[in-house]
Amino acid sequence: MSDLPNRVTDAGLDWLDASGDHSDIVLSTRMRLARNLQGRAFGARSRVNDRTAVLRQVREALPSVQPLQGAEVQELRGLPRRGARLLLERRVISRELLGEVGASSKAADATTADWGASPEEGEEDSGRAVEGAAVVLAPASPLSIMLNEEDHLRIQVLVSGLDLREAWNRVDLLDEELGQHVPYAYHPEFGFLTSCPTNVGTGLRASVLLHLPGLVLTKEIGKVLQGLSQVGLTFRGLYGEGSEVVGNFFQLSNQTTLGKTEEDLVDHLDTVVRQVIQYEVKARHVLLRDAGAVTEDKVWRAYGLLRYARSLSFEELMNLLSGVRLGASLKLLSGLRVYPLNKIMMFTQPAHLDEAAGRVLSPAESDAHRAAYVRRILLDEGSVEESGPPSGSDSGTPSEDPAS
Amino acid sequence: MSDLPNRVTDAGLDWLDASGDHSDIVLSTRMRLARNLQGRAFGARSRVNDRTAVLRQVREALPSVQPLQGAEVQELRGLPRRGARLLLERRVISRELLGEVGASSKAADATTADWGASPEEGEEDSGRAVEGAAVVLAPASPLSIMLNEEDHLRIQVLVSGLDLREAWNRVDLLDEELGQHVPYAYHPEFGFLTSCPTNVGTGLRASVLLHLPGLVLTKEIGKVLQGLSQVGLTFRGLYGEGSEVVGNFFQLSNQTTLGKTEEDLVDHLDTVVRQVIQYEVKARHVLLRDAGAVTEDKVWRAYGLLRYARSLSFEELMNLLSGVRLGASLKLLSGLRVYPLNKIMMFTQPAHLDEAAGRVLSPAESDAHRAAYVRRILLDEGSVEESGPPSGSDSGTPSEDPAS
Repeated sequence: MSDLPNRVTDAGLDWLDASGDHSDIVLSTRMRLARNLQGRAFGARSRVNDRTAVLRQVREALPSVQPLQGAEVQELRGLPRRGARLLLERRVISRELLGEVGASSKAADATTADWGASPEEGEEDSGRAVEGAAVVLAPASPLSIMLNEEDHLRIQVLVSGLDLREAWNRVDLLDEELGQHVPYAYHPEFGFLTSCPTNVGTGLRASVLLHLPGLVLTKEIGKVLQGLSQVGLTFRGLYGEGSEVVGNFFQLSNQTTLGKTEEDLVDHLDTVVRQVIQYEVKARHVLLRDAGAVTEDKVWRAYGLLRYARSLSFEELMNLLSGVRLGASLKLLSGLRVYPLNKIMMFTQPAHLDEAAGRVLSPAESDAHRAAYVRRILLDEGSVEESGPPSGSDSGTPSEDPAS
Repeated sequence: MSDLPNRVTDAGLDWLDASGDHSDIVLSTRMRLARNLQGRAFGARSRVNDRTAVLRQVREALPSVQPLQGAEVQELRGLPRRGARLLLERRVISRELLGEVGASSKAADATTADWGASPEEGEEDSGRAVEGAAVVLAPASPLSIMLNEEDHLRIQVLVSGLDLREAWNRVDLLDEELGQHVPYAYHPEFGFLTSCPTNVGTGLRASVLLHLPGLVLTKEIGKVLQGLSQVGLTFRGLYGEGSEVVGNFFQLSNQTTLGKTEEDLVDHLDTVVRQVIQYEVKARHVLLRDAGAVTEDKVWRAYGLLRYARSLSFEELMNLLSGVRLGASLKLLSGLRVYPLNKIMMFTQPAHLDEAAGRVLSPAESDAHRAAYVRRILLDEGSVEESGPPSGSDSGTPSEDPAS
């Protein structure tokens, strides 16, 4: 049905399979390295010839870079609006790369593409991307590189569950190889030079997307989030910085990169995230102990609405999905796997629905298509009837025990 | 599980089978005749010896009355509270018969037992019924007689769907036969004498229980109800006079009985009810035409919640049931019959849940048992998945077209 290149329609989907650790609580691990090339102006000072030179240099280097075998460079200006929206919803490109966010105004935020940013968008032309803005997409790979965004290069990886080590190894390897073919701007004292000072040093930003309904429902979340800022971490809602938290999904990431090694940053984030997971697991136990019946009712009602509603807004879907994900994780909805829930989250975003329909849907149509997709996935997933006590054997989730 | 006499646990259930005309819109037809015996004080002036005499006279007459073969007299004072509540929820006895409503204060209202009156009740002793208060219950019969309520006798019948003629024939036949064995108080000019002036004459009150979601959702209901009072009819919510309408269920009945024949009253009510049904059918068509997607979504959401919720208050249940009943009637929920919906309405009332559990449930337990019962019935009823356009062939409802 799609007239978009396969590399667009396949990009950024790898993490959905919920194959990673703690994938019922940690949806995905994301990492990016900010790099700039020597001898070319970067950031706000870059001109067309700088950007086209970056594009050319990377394009020439690609065949020699093993992790990107078969990759192609997709320029944003040449891409239909729908394809650009798809990549945005996949978190493979940022709104800034599309020219939709001022480069200087939201520098810190633009380091990570924002999930679901497009629901707030109208029908405006997406052709505002600057010349040279592009993304490198490799077939069947969690790796990608944004070109000529805030920095010349944003090397990115997105993997399932909690796997900061794997994510780091993937971007590090790619960075190493690519660095042998294109000359990075590097300062012996400061490290890698970047457009925004907060990225100078390692240029690394690592983030994990967490589902924390237990902490939200037990009202412990405020305390936990406060603690995060004290250890140099920051959090955002699903829609990025400053947005409200939807569906109890939180993005946790490191705040600064100067003066620390990549390993330090990764280890530190890993430690804290594991602590947050413990808190969440504990909160869920408290929830089941003190409000078990209410929680069970809430979870099943969410399932019932998703299973049968004929119209769902993305926001309502995310809230219901939060309940169902909690139920699946607690084995209240026995037999329901995380994978279909991840798929629902991804493929019910507006551009994804448009892509599946082969046309731009009206808001009402979009809500109807969303509900229809959810019903089909849950129907395919089969019966979750009348679960007994937690069995755990049939969940299909690799990570059975979130506390393990 | 029940330690109550069978005649209690079986009474008042006949109409549930949805075998009557228009049973997707008209739940039941109810009729009662108020009668008093000569030579005994009735109403507020009756004394114990009057009431026990009435009881004795009726008891002696029973074996000779064909429509009540096998019937027994159940005194309210001898009946466990749970049994009394059951009969109240079945609309076989009234709160007044239980001594819970002042005989004079709500005379007009007490002519019909109020559906679902007990949810508002606490745990108070039901032993307030006066001596002689009783009900005659016949096995597997829609007929019953309240003894020593506001009048000495309240001959009652409750049948499925819209069937005023059948209901009238049943009470009339019983009245004729019984009248040959007990002497009715009758005045040649006024007709049958009753405790409350509004009943003098025929002593007949006929009512139908209608489900009118179409008129409510299209906001036409006010106009229709206004029209009713102009033609001498009155309406009440499910819980009786003055109560809020719950679940879009309305009881329509005649207001006065003096100066008209029984046939006139019955024919008049029948004509008006058929008109109201036409309005309702038309409103449903308008609803589907102008808000089809919204209606469908509403109906399926109600089904989804009933299908999976773990806790349901009686009021929420009634509202959801209204949506599902509408969906079944419009063939949006294809394959869902009216019978299980009637069963749900009946057996999820508090005393019925207590009876099934064999003990008095706490409010929270009651809500959980209610939800469990609903799930079981809907699960037994089988798949209503993804209906296509209205098929009508598999609904199992005898009355396929509410407009026919």
